[in-house]
Amino acid sequence: MSARAAILVTGTEVLTGRVSDRNGPWLADRLLELGVDVAQTAIVADRPQELLATLRFLADQGVDMVITSGGLGPTADDLTAEVVAAFQERPLMLDEALEGRIAEILRPLALRFPDLDVDAVRAGNAKQALVPRGATVLEPVGTAPGLVVPPPEGSPGGPTVVVLPGPPRELQPMWGDAVVKDAFRAATAGAGDLRQRTLRLFGLPESEIAATLRQAVADGVALERLEVTTCLRRGEVEVVTRFEPPAQSVHDALADVVRTRHADTLFSDDGRSVDAMVLDALRGPPARRIAVAESCTGGLLAARLTERAGSSEVVAGGLVVYANEAKVSLAGVDPGLIASFGAVSVEVARALASGACDRFGADVGVGVTGVAGPTGGTEDKPVGTVCLSAVLADGGGALTHRVTLPGARFDVRDRSTTVALHLVRRLLAGERD
Amino acid sequence: MSARAAILVTGTEVLTGRVSDRNGPWLADRLLELGVDVAQTAIVADRPQELLATLRFLADQGVDMVITSGGLGPTADDLTAEVVAAFQERPLMLDEALEGRIAEILRPLALRFPDLDVDAVRAGNAKQALVPRGATVLEPVGTAPGLVVPPPEGSPGGPTVVVLPGPPRELQPMWGDAVVKDAFRAATAGAGDLRQRTLRLFGLPESEIAATLRQAVADGVALERLEVTTCLRRGEVEVVTRFEPPAQSVHDALADVVRTRHADTLFSDDGRSVDAMVLDALRGPPARRIAVAESCTGGLLAARLTERAGSSEVVAGGLVVYANEAKVSLAGVDPGLIASFGAVSVEVARALASGACDRFGADVGVGVTGVAGPTGGTEDKPVGTVCLSAVLADGGGALTHRVTLPGARFDVRDRSTTVALHLVRRLLAGERD
Repeated sequence: MSARAAILVTGTEVLTGRVSDRNGPWLADRLLELGVDVAQTAIVADRPQELLATLRFLADQGVDMVITSGGLGPTADDLTAEVVAAFQERPLMLDEALEGRIAEILRPLALRFPDLDVDAVRAGNAKQALVPRGATVLEPVGTAPGLVVPPPEGSPGGPTVVVLPGPPRELQPMWGDAVVKDAFRAATAGAGDLRQRTLRLFGLPESEIAATLRQAVADGVALERLEVTTCLRRGEVEVVTRFEPPAQSVHDALADVVRTRHADTLFSDDGRSVDAMVLDALRGPPARRIAVAESCTGGLLAARLTERAGSSEVVAGGLVVYANEAKVSLAGVDPGLIASFGAVSVEVARALASGACDRFGADVGVGVTGVAGPTGGTEDKPVGTVCLSAVLADGGGALTHRVTLPGARFDVRDRSTTVALHLVRRLLAGERD
Repeated sequence: MSARAAILVTGTEVLTGRVSDRNGPWLADRLLELGVDVAQTAIVADRPQELLATLRFLADQGVDMVITSGGLGPTADDLTAEVVAAFQERPLMLDEALEGRIAEILRPLALRFPDLDVDAVRAGNAKQALVPRGATVLEPVGTAPGLVVPPPEGSPGGPTVVVLPGPPRELQPMWGDAVVKDAFRAATAGAGDLRQRTLRLFGLPESEIAATLRQAVADGVALERLEVTTCLRRGEVEVVTRFEPPAQSVHDALADVVRTRHADTLFSDDGRSVDAMVLDALRGPPARRIAVAESCTGGLLAARLTERAGSSEVVAGGLVVYANEAKVSLAGVDPGLIASFGAVSVEVARALASGACDRFGADVGVGVTGVAGPTGGTEDKPVGTVCLSAVLADGGGALTHRVTLPGARFDVRDRSTTVALHLVRRLLAGERD
């Protein structure tokens, strides 16, 4: 029924893992928003035979559209436009007006790098002005134009190929230009009005959700009318449901079952992440400002709180107090607490939270101290032991918690920021120790 | 010549972009270390027909091995083992001893979650003990075993499929177990002794490297004997070269050309990242400790410095001073500097760096202040303007810099940490303003 698309990410640097792909997930999100089903993402090297073979395979899967990212640069190993032109049987033709516009874009670059080999740059970029016959040009955001290339003129059954540049800061703005083109709309005309809803839970194993889904079926919920996927993400369980509008009541019934069985762990049923919920709660009313003092997370919690634009209104700042002396001198932790309970203890976490509040004059303070590993673990406090506390200023109450988190250093640090955000969320919702 | 592999990542949550794939890049790195060429990475949903079609396509590409990740969980939508068994024409058989070992693993989980539906869990995990006939079992790290599944008994020409679990903290330890199995070794017997070398440069556009490669060819370097890829990564240019041992002299000649033409921007020719170089330089001798005071990066610089195990020896800590009052009260910035030059200024960056040094009693201080966007830019200081400074304690010298970084908030913040690390690297190498 609904339109289906595949994503084709090109580039040896992505395939070999030196650069992680941000375009595939981003494009998948955008396609789902348009009601287009994502059939597959393929990551291939910049080798023409493999690109072409993969385009053919994706076409054989019956997709209506293939979105490519990358391979539009000025160098000889950038050959996506050429391969797509061959695939769609549309010869490349020089678009002189486009060539002129690219030259305009390059002029300031030449001024910034006076030693630049200007002729080489211009030659490379004339290549970027080659357009498959009948394709729609997407204006360059960097120096490379994008393309919407329809199927071969004689055989209109195949997919339309949307050719986008690799750098996310070029690809993302260009996407908005692509989706309004006639050729794009024609290819996704079958896109259904698919709805997507997300339930987020924290503090239960994924298998419990599997049991709940079985219970819902036993209760008569027509789950076969929904596409339900569950996953663990940064320590939370996400239940994502996609369905056509007539199945809204089925979704609502499922949501009710989850709400009833998991009232204590379901924290979001409107799609908001815990990050968004914490920032919203801080904005108030009453408006509050937050400060953190973190040890094992080394700045990750502050970085996560300041990830979104506008966070400066509610984030006062943070202390990264790796060394014990810094915990004392900067966060004001009583050295006696460290001596008695150890640097990784709920007592020190609580003192860090209070210290962050005091030092920044904030309304909410958070303290995190733990053993991220791989070394530093003891029998009492193995790697993964993390103590966290969230406090309100002036003795307004606190939530303090000790957890043992699974995984390696990366996982422990990342997961700790999730646990910390949930403590803040619950504190701001009125919970107290 | 050399063995080729493909990576098949399964999971609707990865395909739809809700979870970013960490396994593909990690597996690609490990395969390259083994001298195995990576032909393609495919990300598909947990739908049996698509899994099977993709396995067939990858086999058609002539790969010797397919590594799958994901789809080994206890729920009904986890069906990788079943599909791979069908693909290799090897019926699934219950491995009772394995079933017993999985039951042992589950026992403590049942104790932690007393409300758990134990029967459902056990049923789900009996499924995890089904093994394709003739496959080699990889012991569970979580609850799911992995598999090495050889091609069909009658037709040995196809790829061996290595089936691994989705969570990186299960997949990564299991990999070490997989590579020593006879079935794995047999499939990669053709792996050549491929060498890989990386040159890293900072502060030049990628097109300059393209010109240098052309120059090398003109100088008679036999580039066709190397596989050279260049890419932009977090603001650096990486030139990765792969070649068979007899081509070592060709690589060396290319490296010489790059060294000569880019002496001022080439910073690493031994594979080390700037992160590793900074930590190594801090370890000394002389050993030095670093502290940071950051505004727009909001903790990312401290987080990056503490990413690696053992960083606590050299990282004293950090201040996240988002608000101007915090810059004054915590980092000791003279409010007159903020009034005269603005919070985003080289003067304030320098004061932040000195303040970080003083507050933590560190030997090296770093200050970062900028406009990450999307709002807050002015004509004088547009979004992307970042001022950075690295100083040695006690007036030992400094490097201070103002840059305009491209991209959106995410890019500006991330790129700023790279610029900061390069300032520290150069300062520790003896450069001064």
